[in-house]
Amino acid sequence: MTRPITLFTGQWADLPFEEVCRLAASWGYDGLEIACWGDHFEVDRALAEPDYIAGRREILERHGLGVWAISNHLVGQAVCDDPIDDRHRDMIPASVWGDGDPEGVRKRAADRIADTARAAAALGVDTVVGFTGSAIWKYVAMFPPVSEATIDAGYADFADRWNPILDVYDEMGVRFAHEVHPSEIAYDYWSTVRTLEAIEHRPAFGLNWDPSHMIWQDLDPVGFLWDFRDRIYHVDCKDTRRRMSNGRNGRLSSHLPWGDPRRGWDFVSTGHGDVPWEDSFRTLNAIGYTRPISIEWEDAGMDRLVGAAEAVGFVRSLAFDPPATAFDAAFSTDR
Amino acid sequence: MTRPITLFTGQWADLPFEEVCRLAASWGYDGLEIACWGDHFEVDRALAEPDYIAGRREILERHGLGVWAISNHLVGQAVCDDPIDDRHRDMIPASVWGDGDPEGVRKRAADRIADTARAAAALGVDTVVGFTGSAIWKYVAMFPPVSEATIDAGYADFADRWNPILDVYDEMGVRFAHEVHPSEIAYDYWSTVRTLEAIEHRPAFGLNWDPSHMIWQDLDPVGFLWDFRDRIYHVDCKDTRRRMSNGRNGRLSSHLPWGDPRRGWDFVSTGHGDVPWEDSFRTLNAIGYTRPISIEWEDAGMDRLVGAAEAVGFVRSLAFDPPATAFDAAFSTDR
Amino acid sequence: MTRPITLFTGQWADLPFEEVCRLAASWGYDGLEIACWGDHFEVDRALAEPDYIAGRREILERHGLGVWAISNHLVGQAVCDDPIDDRHRDMIPASVWGDGDPEGVRKRAADRIADTARAAAALGVDTVVGFTGSAIWKYVAMFPPVSEATIDAGYADFADRWNPILDVYDEMGVRFAHEVHPSEIAYDYWSTVRTLEAIEHRPAFGLNWDPSHMIWQDLDPVGFLWDFRDRIYHVDCKDTRRRMSNGRNGRLSSHLPWGDPRRGWDFVSTGHGDVPWEDSFRTLNAIGYTRPISIEWEDAGMDRLVGAAEAVGFVRSLAFDPPATAFDAAFSTDR
Amino acid sequence: MTRPITLFTGQWADLPFEEVCRLAASWGYDGLEIACWGDHFEVDRALAEPDYIAGRREILERHGLGVWAISNHLVGQAVCDDPIDDRHRDMIPASVWGDGDPEGVRKRAADRIADTARAAAALGVDTVVGFTGSAIWKYVAMFPPVSEATIDAGYADFADRWNPILDVYDEMGVRFAHEVHPSEIAYDYWSTVRTLEAIEHRPAFGLNWDPSHMIWQDLDPVGFLWDFRDRIYHVDCKDTRRRMSNGRNGRLSSHLPWGDPRRGWDFVSTGHGDVPWEDSFRTLNAIGYTRPISIEWEDAGMDRLVGAAEAVGFVRSLAFDPPATAFDAAFSTDR
Amino acid sequence: MTRPITLFTGQWADLPFEEVCRLAASWGYDGLEIACWGDHFEVDRALAEPDYIAGRREILERHGLGVWAISNHLVGQAVCDDPIDDRHRDMIPASVWGDGDPEGVRKRAADRIADTARAAAALGVDTVVGFTGSAIWKYVAMFPPVSEATIDAGYADFADRWNPILDVYDEMGVRFAHEVHPSEIAYDYWSTVRTLEAIEHRPAFGLNWDPSHMIWQDLDPVGFLWDFRDRIYHVDCKDTRRRMSNGRNGRLSSHLPWGDPRRGWDFVSTGHGDVPWEDSFRTLNAIGYTRPISIEWEDAGMDRLVGAAEAVGFVRSLAFDPPATAFDAAFSTDR
Amino acid sequence: MTRPITLFTGQWADLPFEEVCRLAASWGYDGLEIACWGDHFEVDRALAEPDYIAGRREILERHGLGVWAISNHLVGQAVCDDPIDDRHRDMIPASVWGDGDPEGVRKRAADRIADTARAAAALGVDTVVGFTGSAIWKYVAMFPPVSEATIDAGYADFADRWNPILDVYDEMGVRFAHEVHPSEIAYDYWSTVRTLEAIEHRPAFGLNWDPSHMIWQDLDPVGFLWDFRDRIYHVDCKDTRRRMSNGRNGRLSSHLPWGDPRRGWDFVSTGHGDVPWEDSFRTLNAIGYTRPISIEWEDAGMDRLVGAAEAVGFVRSLAFDPPATAFDAAFSTDR
Repeated sequence: MTRPITLFTGQWADLPFEEVCRLAASWGYDGLEIACWGDHFEVDRALAEPDYIAGRREILERHGLGVWAISNHLVGQAVCDDPIDDRHRDMIPASVWGDGDPEGVRKRAADRIADTARAAAALGVDTVVGFTGSAIWKYVAMFPPVSEATIDAGYADFADRWNPILDVYDEMGVRFAHEVHPSEIAYDYWSTVRTLEAIEHRPAFGLNWDPSHMIWQDLDPVGFLWDFRDRIYHVDCKDTRRRMSNGRNGRLSSHLPWGDPRRGWDFVSTGHGDVPWEDSFRTLNAIGYTRPISIEWEDAGMDRLVGAAEAVGFVRSLAFDPPATAFDAAFSTDR
Repeated sequence: MTRPITLFTGQWADLPFEEVCRLAASWGYDGLEIACWGDHFEVDRALAEPDYIAGRREILERHGLGVWAISNHLVGQAVCDDPIDDRHRDMIPASVWGDGDPEGVRKRAADRIADTARAAAALGVDTVVGFTGSAIWKYVAMFPPVSEATIDAGYADFADRWNPILDVYDEMGVRFAHEVHPSEIAYDYWSTVRTLEAIEHRPAFGLNWDPSHMIWQDLDPVGFLWDFRDRIYHVDCKDTRRRMSNGRNGRLSSHLPWGDPRRGWDFVSTGHGDVPWEDSFRTLNAIGYTRPISIEWEDAGMDRLVGAAEAVGFVRSLAFDPPATAFDAAFSTDR
Repeated sequence: MTRPITLFTGQWADLPFEEVCRLAASWGYDGLEIACWGDHFEVDRALAEPDYIAGRREILERHGLGVWAISNHLVGQAVCDDPIDDRHRDMIPASVWGDGDPEGVRKRAADRIADTARAAAALGVDTVVGFTGSAIWKYVAMFPPVSEATIDAGYADFADRWNPILDVYDEMGVRFAHEVHPSEIAYDYWSTVRTLEAIEHRPAFGLNWDPSHMIWQDLDPVGFLWDFRDRIYHVDCKDTRRRMSNGRNGRLSSHLPWGDPRRGWDFVSTGHGDVPWEDSFRTLNAIGYTRPISIEWEDAGMDRLVGAAEAVGFVRSLAFDPPATAFDAAFSTDR
Repeated sequence: MTRPITLFTGQWADLPFEEVCRLAASWGYDGLEIACWGDHFEVDRALAEPDYIAGRREILERHGLGVWAISNHLVGQAVCDDPIDDRHRDMIPASVWGDGDPEGVRKRAADRIADTARAAAALGVDTVVGFTGSAIWKYVAMFPPVSEATIDAGYADFADRWNPILDVYDEMGVRFAHEVHPSEIAYDYWSTVRTLEAIEHRPAFGLNWDPSHMIWQDLDPVGFLWDFRDRIYHVDCKDTRRRMSNGRNGRLSSHLPWGDPRRGWDFVSTGHGDVPWEDSFRTLNAIGYTRPISIEWEDAGMDRLVGAAEAVGFVRSLAFDPPATAFDAAFSTDR
Repeated sequence: MTRPITLFTGQWADLPFEEVCRLAASWGYDGLEIACWGDHFEVDRALAEPDYIAGRREILERHGLGVWAISNHLVGQAVCDDPIDDRHRDMIPASVWGDGDPEGVRKRAADRIADTARAAAALGVDTVVGFTGSAIWKYVAMFPPVSEATIDAGYADFADRWNPILDVYDEMGVRFAHEVHPSEIAYDYWSTVRTLEAIEHRPAFGLNWDPSHMIWQDLDPVGFLWDFRDRIYHVDCKDTRRRMSNGRNGRLSSHLPWGDPRRGWDFVSTGHGDVPWEDSFRTLNAIGYTRPISIEWEDAGMDRLVGAAEAVGFVRSLAFDPPATAFDAAFSTDR
Repeated sequence: MTRPITLFTGQWADLPFEEVCRLAASWGYDGLEIACWGDHFEVDRALAEPDYIAGRREILERHGLGVWAISNHLVGQAVCDDPIDDRHRDMIPASVWGDGDPEGVRKRAADRIADTARAAAALGVDTVVGFTGSAIWKYVAMFPPVSEATIDAGYADFADRWNPILDVYDEMGVRFAHEVHPSEIAYDYWSTVRTLEAIEHRPAFGLNWDPSHMIWQDLDPVGFLWDFRDRIYHVDCKDTRRRMSNGRNGRLSSHLPWGDPRRGWDFVSTGHGDVPWEDSFRTLNAIGYTRPISIEWEDAGMDRLVGAAEAVGFVRSLAFDPPATAFDAAFSTDR
């Protein structure tokens, strides 16, 4: 296979970067999609310390790993979110949280996401994967009644906060790949359509295709690839398993923790869930996607050291390259 | 059929109570489940004005209608909700909203829901239908990461706010029938289990079975009746139609307004959706439910004057009484 | 519609024959499929009393009803059954039960089923509907291990007991229409194939198509009509509803009584269940079935006086005659 | 309902026009979609005889019927078809067939379809419904191997033959509504996309939405309405029922005649099949379709006099108008 | 994996115990669930011969195998069964069969099952797996009509016969794990509920979870684990494949032998069927099941030497242990 | 496994025969199903050149490969086809095409298919696999209206052209195995029934079971094996994957090329599709099929060198032999 298979380091940020490099290389990954948290890739240091990036590059090279994208989901989440609360405090850098005043947090998060483009360019990668946050996600139940003006305002808020950020991305020659995900401005098919309209389809903003969030919403991740084929900037392979056959486990999963068998769905090791992986990889071939295929490993019921090692083999076996010629040439007598 | 079929007046509160009585009677309803908003049933006046209740009774009797339950969803929503915002302001009485300080709104809402029991008793009905609100609904996506302590605190908050209210209900001989619904403390099967545990299954708190919110979550509304058979205090017949066959319309419905064909599901006139009505009514027979069957009519794609008239006939034809004797008696020679 | 719609009187045998005639006529039935139990049609009296049959005919005519078939399921059940026990005693005539010695019961039952052909001929009808019983039904779980020899012996026992009976049918110009049903020698598709082989497809033995027993076995009742089209001698319209969506209600229904919502399936009023009625009636047209369409009404959750009246209208609306000419004649310019 | 319900007269052309008018009016139709075959509407006479159109109008008015579209499927079929053979001879006017030389037939058919626009304008209607034919339909199995050049040539042939026709439509202010149908240039979703591209989306060419041909191809007729909402120029309500549950009846239906129960699908009376009619009508409301809803009645297993009378009631009950206001206004305290 | 994977020896009793040990060890099993038939484990000898048990233990140890449970399905079957016939004679020890008088057989079977607890204790295992038999299984079709009193008597018969047996189990510190199975007193979900009620949930009686019998009844084996989580005493991994897609192969499988493709379902090698194994093993983790996972291998279409070797690898790959910590720790900045 | 696994060389005819032998042997195939095109097996040379066949045999033996069948689909296609056009010219030998006059092509194709039997006999194999062509396939849409006489004539044409060919087959002791396939006289279940009737079930004509063409027609390939079990003369394992979940990709696949993700189905590497392989191989065991299992590899989205190597292992793992004895022998005490 010609496309690199990378490991997203976000769920491994409790381990030192070097240890993650060692593990990923030992399992056969070609590179990393490096998270901008833990000590994996620190945006402020990357811009402030002259040899920080060279140091990261050196560690990667020592393990024979490449990098084609970095990710900053956690800070991105704070750009548009409302409310801003302890959940954000616990996952963003102290320098972004500051005094915790919501609007201040949002502004500092926007600055940091712009800086992430600068750091990406410095690292030599052209893609930043992440989240946008959303001022209107909390109204998803549409009760108490929500006016269309409120929804419109939510998309406008997104455009107002992200257009200046995307100007920096354009300047740096970097693109932002938003992961369609609950809690974000674009979380399903039609909200993705609306989100792209809100920023007038500017090319700086595209999508990180992660099918795991589509499966439990009954969206078709394969058709999504085709319909948004000019905006697929990155691919994250996370898997989801539905288990709703008893009429008691529902889609909303009862605020139960990951791994609880009463949840209607759960994230599982890549290849153990309901994502139609082979159809997806074939469609990635069909739309000419040639960038990394990254594994985002998340499974509350399986040891990650076992699972991440298994997943790279699973993906490699299915994400094969297309053939060069059509099969029915053999039927022709024109030889 | 021996059980009364009533019309829930909540979606008709823009019309005067008397006009709703006239319409419901003309369509063949046996009575009303009266909403405590608009001018339909005003709790404060019911407790303050000596002849208010007699006046309501008189109007009902004039139209040949009965009443077995009143409903106060909108104020109930404010008891536990967080955030409290303009959505609440627009739907609760000014006297409950007051200065809009969130905790003050919650306390006044709790007082008003307690008063609703007093007013119900005065009206001679033993059931109040409604919502609870929820401090943790907004965390339904479970991202940014939510701790189990936060979820536990949400159920505790519910118990702390509702136990004093339910003391009043016990005192008045009235029961509260919570409608399992997104945005509430109990919104699916396992959250209902947890909610009942939080208040130690005290009999004052039961359920208003409304299957429309279960359908799009892939919950089984029929099994729900059986499993919670000792807590089914009221029945609201609202219907939901799923339309997700294209892989683009998802469960979360993209913040699209009611009636938009891109939504993955929508409320439709009772009998036009996916609720297994006959199985449900047969199970209500099996569990011995003998209270009203109320129609909550809501359909953004159909004229309500047409739909509500049709719905009462639909329900009456299926909600038949069980037979008195077993069918296989006829096989016996013991005659 | 040119085919008569009849009511099977088996589930009404606790009522006097004349009362059943009165009811059926008032609901619009064209005739009866008369059960040979209760006082509806007594085989021994029909053969012994010179004017018994004229009396029955007179009652029918008085109510404007016809008869094209009689049914003797209950005695038929005893012909091959093993064990013979109190269940049989309670449902067959005392003269057939006698001292209850199993082999004696079986022999007297065989004689009575032969007599039923004689009585049918006397009444002027050419079809007797019924059951066969089975020596091997009790081994349906195939554990403890059952040898193929035992199964073979079961079919042989059927042939040995029924061939002499069928000789009488041939002699009388009457045919027996077996109802494929659990507890019988033929209870599904392949056991029907085997049963017809066991008696070498002699024309005296055919089938009473009753789809209700096929639905819960996941058999296709429409394809059954086509495949056995030369042996469809009678049609009984009984309906079945599956309700297994919760993973707890199973196919075998836990020995629960009819009407219990925990059963995985139940008999319901014709038109309320899962039988594909319109496809079935269209296929009856396609195979040229021109005999009666009889309604066997059985529903433990509905009053039979309500249900049987409704069912005749349901069937009449769908069991329409085929058109005389092909629809695409209108496209031709050959006029 | 504000939109007229019309009867398509194509399947009734063996009856005189006046008789069809009498029948349609007696069943409650508002008007006709008149076929240009039989004596219903003769294009050549309409252009040649000064009072032909007035005569048609007079008959319609006498029966209280309107007309908003005429249809010329049969001649349209011959415009692009290859081969041209006896099937065409049997269904097109002798003047179009001429000597039967294929290319001559195609050219005369093209002229007649252009004339149909002229006749429509003369009649005062702005829509012609019909077929296009196709040079490549016969290659649908893609074996023996078919080159992409051959397929490209098929679409080009369509454009070459139809663009001059559509020039006449533009001139006359009439639009052609192509019925997506096997045997035509556009027969499914992606071939419709390609067809519209081939003529560069010129507005003169739109679609007659007939869901019956989509059902057995597993296409979603509701989503089709949304995606092609600016090209839905006419609606034909024909219904299809799938019956493939036995693994023997297949999609291609074995060259079996209409009405044979071994076919995997068949056309059935509107409302008796698998088209999601209510979802379709609601989506027609959502896209603002305000033109006629026409019933194309075709069912080889049902008498057409019975079926067409029933169908108009079925459609009228579901094709209701949308409401004027949003349902949740009643929740607001803003009164 | 920390739980042992064992092989149930019941289907291997035609081979000498030592040979089965050799095979199981060579395939990588951790131990055996030893059947009390063939020469595998003879209850009477275990109690009568002083060194019998030491001899069994020695053989196991020599092959590096453990034992945590013994099984006595065949004798257990005779405790409640009615009728008792040749099928029992062929599968139980001659000393239990005796003269074959049914009630005598039942009593001796009961004694032997009590002795099995004594022998288990002597062997040092605390679990006996097996069947109960049933006086009412034969009435599963509920025709001829069966009274509720008869069903009640069946459960009472079970309690009467098993309570004294279970007293011995309590005394010995051993528990009986009943396998929910057709032909037994508990054969589906609700009959299991009723069975546990009949013996008042005494802890001596629990369940051997074998999903193969649930699959063809459309029961959810995963939900079964959760609902009866305090009674799951043992696990047998047998698999079942449904093949009913043609409308001719039914649930009851036509008395056809195992392996016949016309059966609606069949037992297949573990991992080749429809049991949701991974969901099941994850739920076993979630309920804290830490006892053996035993493979009951049965497949009439596959060589057992091939299949049993393959099955242990299949189960080992999916029955992984749960992780120690939650996956989302990595998102926190609390480091 | 005792049956040989062969590779069908048809899709490899652009490679020299010897190279295909080398590849197949290196991947572990037991032999080849040799195509009569490319240089693989030339019928005319086999009959004309004395040592041609010995030469082919020598090459096979050198690579350790066997041969049990040869295939001549492409010439067979021309025997009945209408129209005959460039698609045929491009795939049949120039000597069969000749001047391209359709009837001449058909006659020469018939002669060549007869010669293929002679060549097969010379090679020492008793089976020729192939296609028949069809005069009526082009009417599959049944519009413009097709008369039953036309369909009847199509089957008669097939019989007229093939009976003389089959006489040669009988004479040579060779059988023709027709592959049920779109474009052929038999393309689904009922057209196969009709085709076999047309030639009066003469044994010289049987079937090459290739399930890939059944999957997208919703036919059951497993039941097909059982129903036509006496006519299964050869097996080709080609696989098909459906992908129609989005309501836009239809069964007829829009004339899109193989590998396009908008097609409703596509051929994929054996084991990557929707064919129920294990059920199929088990049924082949049940019907006693002992001839080759051939892999027809075709996948426009995968490199054939990767896929064909993988497929042989996939098939070998599932096409296991049946066991010699019944599993439940172990339950018996008769030892």
